[in-house]
Amino acid sequence: MTISFTVTKKNHACRARLGLLHTPHGTVETPVFMPVGTQATVKAMTPEEVRNAGGRLILSNTYHIYLRPGHELVKEAGGLHRFMHWDGPILTDSGGFQVFSLGPLRKVSEEGVTFRSHIDGSEHFFSPEKAMEVQMALGSDIAMAFDECAPYPCSPEYALGALERTSRWAERCLAVHRREDQGVFGIVQGGTFPDLREKSARELVGLNFPGYAIGGLSVGEPKNLMYEILDYTVPLLPEDKPRYLMGVGSPDCLIEGVARGIDMFDCVLPTRIARNGTVLTRRGKLVVRNAEYASDFAPLDPDCSCYTCRNYTRAYLRHLIKAGEILGIRLTTIHNLHFVLELMKEIREAIHEGEILEYRDRFLKEYKGV
Amino acid sequence: MTISFTVTKKNHACRARLGLLHTPHGTVETPVFMPVGTQATVKAMTPEEVRNAGGRLILSNTYHIYLRPGHELVKEAGGLHRFMHWDGPILTDSGGFQVFSLGPLRKVSEEGVTFRSHIDGSEHFFSPEKAMEVQMALGSDIAMAFDECAPYPCSPEYALGALERTSRWAERCLAVHRREDQGVFGIVQGGTFPDLREKSARELVGLNFPGYAIGGLSVGEPKNLMYEILDYTVPLLPEDKPRYLMGVGSPDCLIEGVARGIDMFDCVLPTRIARNGTVLTRRGKLVVRNAEYASDFAPLDPDCSCYTCRNYTRAYLRHLIKAGEILGIRLTTIHNLHFVLELMKEIREAIHEGEILEYRDRFLKEYKGV
Repeated sequence: MTISFTVTKKNHACRARLGLLHTPHGTVETPVFMPVGTQATVKAMTPEEVRNAGGRLILSNTYHIYLRPGHELVKEAGGLHRFMHWDGPILTDSGGFQVFSLGPLRKVSEEGVTFRSHIDGSEHFFSPEKAMEVQMALGSDIAMAFDECAPYPCSPEYALGALERTSRWAERCLAVHRREDQGVFGIVQGGTFPDLREKSARELVGLNFPGYAIGGLSVGEPKNLMYEILDYTVPLLPEDKPRYLMGVGSPDCLIEGVARGIDMFDCVLPTRIARNGTVLTRRGKLVVRNAEYASDFAPLDPDCSCYTCRNYTRAYLRHLIKAGEILGIRLTTIHNLHFVLELMKEIREAIHEGEILEYRDRFLKEYKGV
Repeated sequence: MTISFTVTKKNHACRARLGLLHTPHGTVETPVFMPVGTQATVKAMTPEEVRNAGGRLILSNTYHIYLRPGHELVKEAGGLHRFMHWDGPILTDSGGFQVFSLGPLRKVSEEGVTFRSHIDGSEHFFSPEKAMEVQMALGSDIAMAFDECAPYPCSPEYALGALERTSRWAERCLAVHRREDQGVFGIVQGGTFPDLREKSARELVGLNFPGYAIGGLSVGEPKNLMYEILDYTVPLLPEDKPRYLMGVGSPDCLIEGVARGIDMFDCVLPTRIARNGTVLTRRGKLVVRNAEYASDFAPLDPDCSCYTCRNYTRAYLRHLIKAGEILGIRLTTIHNLHFVLELMKEIREAIHEGEILEYRDRFLKEYKGV
């Protein structure tokens, strides 16, 4: 199998576990956070900087690359790894979440989704077959099945329809998938309804994917509801396959997700808030563009060992961001990626020591949400 | 003397020379090109990247830093070097060129220049004394005297008035300058008039600055006229002091300037055109954002050894720039800085070999202007 997974350590007090995710571009320790490279670049970073920050596996967005520069061009360039100069593993999403997020710009049928480009308004059609075609052209290590992500909140009837369609589309994805060097993950839907999550998981697990994502979360529901859904959904998934919680990346959710048995995460949060002048610290977020930091000559986070914190002050970072200088965004992005990836490293160490719940409690005591 | 200069080699066929410029933050080989860090950052670059590209001495803009974040803040931060994490030498301009460029936003008197901020319209006053105060607060290695830069074209009467005021202002600058670890350079004005250049040079040389700039060039006059002015102005300056041609940085002008005895240059051109998707190559400029490069998988310049050319294709760079990705600007900036700084290195080697005119002819044969 292209993608394989080894659980190397389990915790007894909760579902947290350590694992090794083997891919055609190398093995990755889990739990892992995937920095997001939407348009074939992790915004503002070179691949070397992503790696230095601790990034090992990145996510790229099928929808965006399909529209620009186009998957055929990337294929001609030798695939996404070569195109963007990243030699580690890449996971591509299916484009489903993006096209469903387009709202009035899209129309759904059993066949697939017709949508208009957010760039130029041109009309496009995505289907399970198309999502596989595009991802095969990109050559990511992990492709995601094309799913229907139900909004939050939604009725059980709507959630049922979406999960059943997701199952049918998952079969169609597998039927056309041809790359030996690419694994396809299924996506469990079912909204906030335990019986629907169970039905979705049962149907997808029956298709024997090498990994499973839990979709339809982090779409506006309260965090406690998300944790509750993880509590009853994770046990429905095979022990020996990686579990991926899509779109989650705030520090507290990462730790709570790991404690509930999640192995993989992705989120634009660390890079997006960085571009807005907000950074993550152990005490919570710090809006370095605020006036209070104008003559603060301390580093962003005195406990942090990243390039930014070793060499620059809050006052300088605030100046750069206020002046619209690219270096400001670069430096806050470096810090935030380092912060989240360092957190994941600590999480893995805590699991190794069998102390993830103690680690969580210590972390959350100091941390004031984002 | 804080700033000293040693000529290490002269060419006989022209005025080109090699030198060592000694500053409180290290010695720099000349001829040297100074990357411009307007707002206390070379746009899009870290200091390490500037150094890796070959940058040794950078220029920063007094006017911009005075307005934002303010020179007092930079002083409080421990000076500009520390504020921006650049431990090599820095030259600051006087702010004169910027405030004179403000046009209707400024009013000139013998005392100084009243102007409005381009950021918020607030009113400010710059004088020789203020320009020195600000530059002393910044702690640059080389400060520039506050001058009046006449526009091109202008009448001999106007040029005479400007150069005489520049001489009086130069005396006032020296009268208030107090930093032992900072040298002040005078700026020769005089427009396009040989007798006025001579008068300006004589008056300034009489003040015994540790270095001299030739101002009022690269302000719209034809290149050949600039070369002509260099031909008769450079011999008016002391042999044993560095000569700085302000605002010049296109490859052909750098070589022609060196052949005429110039030791120092600065220009925003390499970094500015990079941000617009234009790069410098030995064959001239290449507008990588153009459609013709959409599926061109060659590096920007096959002869170039920079990080960008070693790792990325034109097609990828075009994609990044079209998609508004910061990495695109970073990569074109790295290339352009490397190109110009590598050119300066080759120029120094050619002078060392006594072959700068042959080098110029070879270079210009292949190079099609910017």
